[in-house]
Amino acid sequence: MARIPCAVVGATGLAGQQFLAALVDHPRLEVVKLAASTRSAGKRYGEAIREANGQVKWYAAGTVDGLGGLRDLVVEDAAALDPRGLGVVFSAIEAEPARELEPRWGAETAVVSTASAFRYEDDVPILIPGVNMDQARLIDVQRRRRGWKGFITPNPNCTTTGLAVTLAPLHDRFGVERVYMTSMQALSGAGRSPGVIALDSLDNIIPYIPKEEEKVEKETRKILGRLVGDAIEPAPFSVSCTCTRVPVLEGHTESVFVSLARPASEAEVKDAWREQGAAFVAHGYPSSPRHLIVVHDDPFRPQVRLDRDNEGGMATSVGRLRMDPSLPNGLKYVLVSHNTKMGAAKGAILVAEDLIARGYIG
Amino acid sequence: MARIPCAVVGATGLAGQQFLAALVDHPRLEVVKLAASTRSAGKRYGEAIREANGQVKWYAAGTVDGLGGLRDLVVEDAAALDPRGLGVVFSAIEAEPARELEPRWGAETAVVSTASAFRYEDDVPILIPGVNMDQARLIDVQRRRRGWKGFITPNPNCTTTGLAVTLAPLHDRFGVERVYMTSMQALSGAGRSPGVIALDSLDNIIPYIPKEEEKVEKETRKILGRLVGDAIEPAPFSVSCTCTRVPVLEGHTESVFVSLARPASEAEVKDAWREQGAAFVAHGYPSSPRHLIVVHDDPFRPQVRLDRDNEGGMATSVGRLRMDPSLPNGLKYVLVSHNTKMGAAKGAILVAEDLIARGYIG
Amino acid sequence: MARIPCAVVGATGLAGQQFLAALVDHPRLEVVKLAASTRSAGKRYGEAIREANGQVKWYAAGTVDGLGGLRDLVVEDAAALDPRGLGVVFSAIEAEPARELEPRWGAETAVVSTASAFRYEDDVPILIPGVNMDQARLIDVQRRRRGWKGFITPNPNCTTTGLAVTLAPLHDRFGVERVYMTSMQALSGAGRSPGVIALDSLDNIIPYIPKEEEKVEKETRKILGRLVGDAIEPAPFSVSCTCTRVPVLEGHTESVFVSLARPASEAEVKDAWREQGAAFVAHGYPSSPRHLIVVHDDPFRPQVRLDRDNEGGMATSVGRLRMDPSLPNGLKYVLVSHNTKMGAAKGAILVAEDLIARGYIG
Amino acid sequence: MARIPCAVVGATGLAGQQFLAALVDHPRLEVVKLAASTRSAGKRYGEAIREANGQVKWYAAGTVDGLGGLRDLVVEDAAALDPRGLGVVFSAIEAEPARELEPRWGAETAVVSTASAFRYEDDVPILIPGVNMDQARLIDVQRRRRGWKGFITPNPNCTTTGLAVTLAPLHDRFGVERVYMTSMQALSGAGRSPGVIALDSLDNIIPYIPKEEEKVEKETRKILGRLVGDAIEPAPFSVSCTCTRVPVLEGHTESVFVSLARPASEAEVKDAWREQGAAFVAHGYPSSPRHLIVVHDDPFRPQVRLDRDNEGGMATSVGRLRMDPSLPNGLKYVLVSHNTKMGAAKGAILVAEDLIARGYIG
Repeated sequence: MARIPCAVVGATGLAGQQFLAALVDHPRLEVVKLAASTRSAGKRYGEAIREANGQVKWYAAGTVDGLGGLRDLVVEDAAALDPRGLGVVFSAIEAEPARELEPRWGAETAVVSTASAFRYEDDVPILIPGVNMDQARLIDVQRRRRGWKGFITPNPNCTTTGLAVTLAPLHDRFGVERVYMTSMQALSGAGRSPGVIALDSLDNIIPYIPKEEEKVEKETRKILGRLVGDAIEPAPFSVSCTCTRVPVLEGHTESVFVSLARPASEAEVKDAWREQGAAFVAHGYPSSPRHLIVVHDDPFRPQVRLDRDNEGGMATSVGRLRMDPSLPNGLKYVLVSHNTKMGAAKGAILVAEDLIARGYIG
Repeated sequence: MARIPCAVVGATGLAGQQFLAALVDHPRLEVVKLAASTRSAGKRYGEAIREANGQVKWYAAGTVDGLGGLRDLVVEDAAALDPRGLGVVFSAIEAEPARELEPRWGAETAVVSTASAFRYEDDVPILIPGVNMDQARLIDVQRRRRGWKGFITPNPNCTTTGLAVTLAPLHDRFGVERVYMTSMQALSGAGRSPGVIALDSLDNIIPYIPKEEEKVEKETRKILGRLVGDAIEPAPFSVSCTCTRVPVLEGHTESVFVSLARPASEAEVKDAWREQGAAFVAHGYPSSPRHLIVVHDDPFRPQVRLDRDNEGGMATSVGRLRMDPSLPNGLKYVLVSHNTKMGAAKGAILVAEDLIARGYIG
Repeated sequence: MARIPCAVVGATGLAGQQFLAALVDHPRLEVVKLAASTRSAGKRYGEAIREANGQVKWYAAGTVDGLGGLRDLVVEDAAALDPRGLGVVFSAIEAEPARELEPRWGAETAVVSTASAFRYEDDVPILIPGVNMDQARLIDVQRRRRGWKGFITPNPNCTTTGLAVTLAPLHDRFGVERVYMTSMQALSGAGRSPGVIALDSLDNIIPYIPKEEEKVEKETRKILGRLVGDAIEPAPFSVSCTCTRVPVLEGHTESVFVSLARPASEAEVKDAWREQGAAFVAHGYPSSPRHLIVVHDDPFRPQVRLDRDNEGGMATSVGRLRMDPSLPNGLKYVLVSHNTKMGAAKGAILVAEDLIARGYIG
Repeated sequence: MARIPCAVVGATGLAGQQFLAALVDHPRLEVVKLAASTRSAGKRYGEAIREANGQVKWYAAGTVDGLGGLRDLVVEDAAALDPRGLGVVFSAIEAEPARELEPRWGAETAVVSTASAFRYEDDVPILIPGVNMDQARLIDVQRRRRGWKGFITPNPNCTTTGLAVTLAPLHDRFGVERVYMTSMQALSGAGRSPGVIALDSLDNIIPYIPKEEEKVEKETRKILGRLVGDAIEPAPFSVSCTCTRVPVLEGHTESVFVSLARPASEAEVKDAWREQGAAFVAHGYPSSPRHLIVVHDDPFRPQVRLDRDNEGGMATSVGRLRMDPSLPNGLKYVLVSHNTKMGAAKGAILVAEDLIARGYIG
């Protein structure tokens, strides 16, 4: 079967590198174009990620050499990228340029993006594999309204992903009423340029990540909402967050307090988690985990360094489940989710794999 | 004025070292005896803290040399310590031996302890300077009931301290109804032996600290309760916690969600915090901070490495105050409290300083 | 082909865990017995590695679950282990018990050990795969002299390994005269119990590792020595080391200054490194890397986090090669070697694989 | 006594902040002007160090609030700074702008700089307090040749400082012949913008710091050289370095191997170190340590986190002294030096304090 030609835009950044690492040997998708900012345009990829002092900066799995021929692709200027002939554009650029550029590509082809620019538009779904892929139907509305051949589907914020994945089956079965969440987020979430400088992070916690809390609160309700007619009705629960940055390389840890509409026992909650996404993972997509959620009974787990790479970084690990009598039908737990795999590039690729099966791509 | 003779028991451990560092030049208290486990008994202090491989382990401020003559005190066996003639015994031993030994000392003299053994007894107050020193009256009940010349007053768990300090003025003025707290605790909280090994903590978060959550939940309500007759009536709010260990050397960070009984504006909350303990700090005790609580308006603060040592490690730093519409009269904030200073030895010494002024010691 | 039955002794420690992780799916070796100290004896392995507070501690690749049936093997008391019927005993115990126990096993069967107890005996070779496997002939001398059916071959200290691997081809081709080495060693090198506590290592460097420097200095000369008759004549160069511990999880970094007997150009040195062990790796043993040494031209490499796992942790990475005019025929370089893989258990297994081929095992 | 008016240029960077922290309460020097790049010019200092995302970045001792009125000084454009009326300009700018701007200021007044731009000019001394302040006489040559009213004296590179301080008394008494040094340098040495990003440094060692090794090799010989007539004759020994970056916040650790011209016992070397700079520290300058070198007999010291702040960060700590028989009159040791205090701003201020006493400033 011929592979679908795709482009990675923002290819030199941390999220872009994660896209390349995950796509280099992909059976259904073939990277044929790379694009980035003007500064990188015209350089071969291997040169474009070299810093002023000569250092090659690579933050994804494997090595730059593992990219093979992709190292030699000449990086194009993102602003001049021609989307025609591409089956999908993976966009890993910042929100501001995304606002201008993604519609240009979306007019022609599928755009699967890690940028936040279009997440909050009425006709744009925020898709998480195994959670709300049925909302992909909103793509039809989007195309119709905008008169596009293609479309835009953004991933959620990396901190939203693990929360939404673990809340989804609780909301389905017992109804979620209120959520109080504190995140302990990895350094890789801040990207490579400027990123978090070591002097700020070693032996420290930074208690604020600008705009993060608002995103998580808004996105979680949209993702777990219902598609009614042509619009998503956000889930009717509240989400309140405090997001912090901790000295951990990869993987977000979240401490969650939840109030449910109906009572659920510990065993019922664990069952709900273990069964979540069973139909989805049964498709056996190339980037799919075998289990969407891995449940730990050992109270010392999940630990972010030990559990983040579980199932290729695509499974969400949960543990420390306890009933919380101080909330109506209350419970609390801790989750670990890989922010640059399931929470970013590889999650976006898994969305694309399902959209291929659904006929939206290719 | 003659200094009051005191002993430090558990002197070789991390909390014991913190006691020594804080007492070495104390104007009112003089360390005349050191005690520890049988293993250390009979050795000079400087030798007792030397490990099998020859390394001297010192975890408190300054250096072992800064202890001067205390280095040469011969460590006694804690089980054989004679409390007579001592104005106060500072106990930094584990809960299990404390249960047996502290009553022996308390029968004769004042015992101010960092151990949890007696925290939950009806006639034992858990005192925090500037918060509930009025509960010191329970000491009279304790002496009467037990027929002791002395008494035991334990400090709270180090994670309770910052939470209780910041909740106290909110409870006084607006009534606290519910509390949801996630802690990110420093490595020093686990002590030096065995402590947390580096292989477990680097680039990682450990989501469980055995018994910690129960302690914080129970202690906070007792500390902020009311002394009615001869008993403390726990504060009628609920506290629900998830306690984690993060790669930070010193200082606990806590993310707190609170529901109040009565509405409070951001300005009112900040005023309440800024005014907390004003009368207490006005005493100017040797170990006292000038402000019990330091309020940050900069959303990037408090940061544990930057703020833990504020006011000699005795001030609690709060920031990121936000109204939380998802809770009745809800608010959320982040605090930083120094776990081995205000949260342990130095906090215990400040309690003792106030008990001297109240006539319970000396 | 039937797998050779083997035992892992010291199975609960960090090195023992590394043995199990590397042997679980081994095509030629089958773990049939586990042994450890009296404290663990009688427990199933999965229980034996659980700490007093309930936490399962696993420091090797993969997870405890990945061990499959090995989790359920009942751990024997090392002191009572019967070596009869075993093709090889992999010993990962401390030097002191090794001195007593390894000869008991060696009298009956092959003992491949990470302990230092017998490294400095005249009839005991210290073998490194691809470097000095010809010294395996000393095993015949050992058997003859001691009247044993089996033998003992210890691995070098983990810090010696990378140094000896990179010096070997330089000594062969150009003659090594003097070596000055500073190591920056990983935390895992100190094991799990007691290990290095996090309070000592975070934001710090410990400038001393007891006995380490003497070991490296002595072992390197023995390994690169010549087997003349029945004895190894140590290589006639000097090695001077300073060994330090740095906040890195796995992988030792070494900064090396070398004076050669004959001049060598940068290109000649790199060729020597690239060709080292070519015949050995051509055997394609299960635990073998494809290249014994990986040479970096990028001056920012090797970096320990990026390069330690190269070729399954079995390749030594070198870089920063510079001529050093301040030494006769001087050069300097930096190396990274995985201390718990090539430098310990997996390296020992690769020795065993070659000893099988040579007819000493099985 | 009136304080001497001074300016700090490059005031917003990490070294500039260190200057301000060290000068805020200085008894002889008064900061009257602050300057930085065009980007900061025109803003009050407190605003100039605020980043785009609103975060105030402060990396020196104490807090921004501790600067008092300095927070409100309006930052000038460094390129437009008028040096007239200033007793001294403390320059903490990069080498490139320093090359252009420092001569403009030096033509009028004293410039004490942490920049490398003029370190290697024949008529410019590189001064270290307590080591080679007699080379200050070269200032007269500089003024005469250049026709300046003022002069430029740069500090050495922060990695040179500890090495030169500890080699100085060895060279004086026993003659240094060869030096092999490996550094393990703190993150703060890379400054705050861009600095080292946390993703590169956590659990890692970076084996290369561009241009660092050449600087240390060249500067050490110049500093320990002799002023003969109008020129410095570099010390006739060789220095060979490998410089690495480790996950440590502050303080450089160096492992040093030295060959001396004449034999020296361990006791003689320690005496030489203990006596170094005795006459200098006897001046009691405001920024001076009481001992230039602190010698440790405990082999586990110096440890960078424990020892970097010794004597206000102005003492160099040495330990692990061992004779090294593999070098002629060889010895080896480990040192810790505070790179942003003695090794940068505070060291420059101490130079200025001595130059005031010598009549070159004020």
